[in-house]
Amino acid sequence: MNPADITEKEVDSFYQKIKSEAESAGYHLNPDEAFTKELLESILINQERYGYGACPCRLASGDKEEDLDLICPCDYRDPDLDEFGACYCGLYISSEILSGGKKLTSIPERRPGPDQRSIDDESSHELTITNISLPVWRCRVCGYLCAREEPPETCPICKVGKERFERFL
Amino acid sequence: MNPADITEKEVDSFYQKIKSEAESAGYHLNPDEAFTKELLESILINQERYGYGACPCRLASGDKEEDLDLICPCDYRDPDLDEFGACYCGLYISSEILSGGKKLTSIPERRPGPDQRSIDDESSHELTITNISLPVWRCRVCGYLCAREEPPETCPICKVGKERFERFL
Amino acid sequence: MNPADITEKEVDSFYQKIKSEAESAGYHLNPDEAFTKELLESILINQERYGYGACPCRLASGDKEEDLDLICPCDYRDPDLDEFGACYCGLYISSEILSGGKKLTSIPERRPGPDQRSIDDESSHELTITNISLPVWRCRVCGYLCAREEPPETCPICKVGKERFERFL
Repeated sequence: MNPADITEKEVDSFYQKIKSEAESAGYHLNPDEAFTKELLESILINQERYGYGACPCRLASGDKEEDLDLICPCDYRDPDLDEFGACYCGLYISSEILSGGKKLTSIPERRPGPDQRSIDDESSHELTITNISLPVWRCRVCGYLCAREEPPETCPICKVGKERFERFL
Repeated sequence: MNPADITEKEVDSFYQKIKSEAESAGYHLNPDEAFTKELLESILINQERYGYGACPCRLASGDKEEDLDLICPCDYRDPDLDEFGACYCGLYISSEILSGGKKLTSIPERRPGPDQRSIDDESSHELTITNISLPVWRCRVCGYLCAREEPPETCPICKVGKERFERFL
Repeated sequence: MNPADITEKEVDSFYQKIKSEAESAGYHLNPDEAFTKELLESILINQERYGYGACPCRLASGDKEEDLDLICPCDYRDPDLDEFGACYCGLYISSEILSGGKKLTSIPERRPGPDQRSIDDESSHELTITNISLPVWRCRVCGYLCAREEPPETCPICKVGKERFERFL
């Protein structure tokens, strides 16, 4: 397929969707709308080319299994927002950057090399959990977990009532 | 009370509410609107009859305590969506079914018999947690839990800032 | 700065924002709009005075670190909603109070004294986690955790697909 297939209208509608999803979960798109739409257009092109919306700033392999960590939002967005106030592409930025309280710097590639990626899952920090400060409640409908004295009045995810929660830990 | 009490307007307004809640949490209602509204009307009738919106495709006992797992969305919706792409009633369907990528089949009753239900809670898989790959953060306000290098900038549930999170595990 | 700086328009817009965030997460503002807006105006005044929106019904110290638990929504809102059906200020109320099924009573101050607050974090209940009834899944993008047979079709927080989840516990 030809990238020219992507119309301005498709980009606009994708932009509205991604912006609204970002904001409802406490994230922010880059306020430079022209720049942001260019990135989103590249994601739509990747969507057509590969069948999944790979990160517009990295070279995808074309093998979905291998590129899972690169589908936007990528696995590295949140650590990069935490450390640098923006994702690798600059598509998502922190409120500190947004308000001008912090300057945007260049962001190093956080993605491990292919050899490293395959062994990452094996190594996990050793830690024995022997105490827990509050009970963990589980929504029996959607599986939402939260730690508080009592379950919430309403599940924030699926909106069922408190009586649908069970003690999980 | 008489089921005739349920007006078309009430069904419409319930439909809008349930549809919007479903979509904001990543679920989908059956796109056959007439079928879906019939199911929702039955839930409203159960709401009047029993005082809670029991599943429209199962026989409720009338004892809320006993029927908790059957209040829509029922405890079996998500496992059925995972396995069959639809809940037992066909009220909720997966995006794979929605897009035509998978065909809807008949869905067996997953709810355990009454004897089984009462002992289910006792038996849980034995598993010792001795390692954990990332810290778990807890929002001190709403109890939201997430596992990541650092807490998120904003709690996705109650919107408080990162500084309101504490290390939980 | 002078509290007179807060315009009616700012209070209205803050009210709309807080109300919509509350409702989307299953919380409710006090339906007495005049009362609620007065509380919200006080939070905006605190925001100007201290640089953070401290609880309108308590005396803030002015030291953000010390007042973190008092920034609205405060750390005590949810336990007070659980026990009394309202937060200390009456800004947030439960659906039971909202529907008239329960009467509002006076709510004692739950915040520990300053001495108590500093040692609270040290003491946690001893509990060895040795079994877990369902696997816990983690969204690799945002860190969302849920306990269910399989990951959800879509992450309810960041909207990525099921294939972006990993087994966490």
